[in-house]
Amino acid sequence: MSVASLDLDPQSILRLQPGAVRLLDQTRLPGEVVHRTLTHWQDVVDAIRGMVVRGAPAIGIAGAMGVALAAQTTPNELPEAIRALRAARPTAVNLAWAVDAQARLVGTHPGPGLAEALAEGARQIHADEVARCKAIGRHGATLITRGARILTHCNAGALATGGYGTALGIVRAAFEIDPTLRVLVDETRPLMQGSRLTAWELAQAGIGHTVIADNMAAAMMAAGRVSHVVVGADRIAANGDVVNKIGTYGVAVLARAHDIPVIVAAPTSTVDLATPTGTATPIEERDPVEVRDVSLFGRRAFAADSPVANPAFDVTPAWMVSAIITENGVHRAPYDRSLCQV
Amino acid sequence: MSVASLDLDPQSILRLQPGAVRLLDQTRLPGEVVHRTLTHWQDVVDAIRGMVVRGAPAIGIAGAMGVALAAQTTPNELPEAIRALRAARPTAVNLAWAVDAQARLVGTHPGPGLAEALAEGARQIHADEVARCKAIGRHGATLITRGARILTHCNAGALATGGYGTALGIVRAAFEIDPTLRVLVDETRPLMQGSRLTAWELAQAGIGHTVIADNMAAAMMAAGRVSHVVVGADRIAANGDVVNKIGTYGVAVLARAHDIPVIVAAPTSTVDLATPTGTATPIEERDPVEVRDVSLFGRRAFAADSPVANPAFDVTPAWMVSAIITENGVHRAPYDRSLCQV
Repeated sequence: MSVASLDLDPQSILRLQPGAVRLLDQTRLPGEVVHRTLTHWQDVVDAIRGMVVRGAPAIGIAGAMGVALAAQTTPNELPEAIRALRAARPTAVNLAWAVDAQARLVGTHPGPGLAEALAEGARQIHADEVARCKAIGRHGATLITRGARILTHCNAGALATGGYGTALGIVRAAFEIDPTLRVLVDETRPLMQGSRLTAWELAQAGIGHTVIADNMAAAMMAAGRVSHVVVGADRIAANGDVVNKIGTYGVAVLARAHDIPVIVAAPTSTVDLATPTGTATPIEERDPVEVRDVSLFGRRAFAADSPVANPAFDVTPAWMVSAIITENGVHRAPYDRSLCQV
Repeated sequence: MSVASLDLDPQSILRLQPGAVRLLDQTRLPGEVVHRTLTHWQDVVDAIRGMVVRGAPAIGIAGAMGVALAAQTTPNELPEAIRALRAARPTAVNLAWAVDAQARLVGTHPGPGLAEALAEGARQIHADEVARCKAIGRHGATLITRGARILTHCNAGALATGGYGTALGIVRAAFEIDPTLRVLVDETRPLMQGSRLTAWELAQAGIGHTVIADNMAAAMMAAGRVSHVVVGADRIAANGDVVNKIGTYGVAVLARAHDIPVIVAAPTSTVDLATPTGTATPIEERDPVEVRDVSLFGRRAFAADSPVANPAFDVTPAWMVSAIITENGVHRAPYDRSLCQV
């Protein structure tokens, strides 16, 4: 564990080293910028589950690195590692996609070359994700008007993708064209990826922003303070339904009620043509402690035994989505056709 | 300061004693049940500002008690106390209403009887608020169907009203008829009155409930887990626009999108016929530290310098409100007529 520089070089977010996976610990931001060096694939599973690394593309990269790490250090456990990494979180499709890509290499690279092939595979997945984000940024920026006031939810930034970001990739690309752009950041309870991660990324990049409690978004829209909603996705079904961080669906309903476009940014690895609709997606119910263990001014805001719900994702129906941006371009409804072309 | 019993006797929430106002400290719940004994009217102003006591009817009662306290202990400062108490918070109309009622007594009770008249005035306002809540509960319960799943926002309970509650008054009255009723409680950022106060009140009363992060409400509605929205109000304009805790407007938009009725509960002291529409109401912008000073698992969730917004209230337009319940009955649109009859 070491204190890092503040840049968001992709290698600073996730790196495969000889015998280790090194991750920027996203649970410690924004207070501390520290890295964790994981030397066993099981530690990578735990880091994904515990959201040390989170964001659909980033956990895919971490999963691929975990497979490469297992091949290097515990080759006998490789099949077990593949199974466990693939199942570390259930909702995002990228994790299974990336681990499956590595598993295919296992079949085709017998013997001594395997570890290096898997390392190269993981590096390639990482580089590809960053390149896809930059393409998403370019395509998406064409939809952002001058003086935009962009509301985003959760963190679909460099931290979530291994570099540059999807929703924040669009923000970055649009900001290069128009530095008067500003971002309204939902804090995104329960785990506060907005206030902890997105605000931190935007501050690093010098992009003007204001953080709000999630329940302030409606009033901001009514006051004309939101021109676009731009969010990421954990999984996009074949019909264009978007599974993303809990609260995204509510933001989309509010945006529709205020005639604000809802733009979803995600690499094609997030599009799951095998899932016909969003309602067919497993929604992870996470530990209630994530909701409960919150303090205001140092005092607990929940009784220890308060019954709580903690669904991690919700589903935004395709008809509410104005555009889906992938590395291939701007997709419009009907998504069952336009996404097939990915 | 003393540890109290857990009952929600109105006298336990707010009490005027000889030379003191005794308040249940709502900033310490649910972790600690402690009372504060205030011996100067300025302490009452600070308690209202600092939300030691909060909720539109309750701060009206506290303001009236503060005037009575000033008459007892610092009679020379009575005009200054009246001005300061009336202005302690700007949005709720009840505070000005209750302080003005006391100020009228000052004009009509010269000399030695004044302090006792103001004490009696404060006690009467308190007793009247509780009686009004019980009437609101009776009227409102007629709108709650069997097996209801009621979503509420913030705390419009006994703590907010000096006893029984407005929105929670309806819940209490409906629960007596149908104990299978359950409540979904928005935690209500930034100050978490839902998880801290409403969940605590419901637990005391044995009413089944689940607390959710504010951004989960939409998914709960989409899943069919909300049958009614019942909220309080800080001010109701003559046209029926409802000013209430930030986030109420968003809940109303979501409820409309899911065909769920939005029921607003408030005593007539909350109805301000002098305010034509909700947009004419001053919206208090509170200290950003309330948004920022939040921790998860003991770690700060905001950078200390993150720019944040903190509007305390929002405006729900009358057309989104299915019914307004006062102590006089069920009011329906057009509210500009039905509220005049209060």
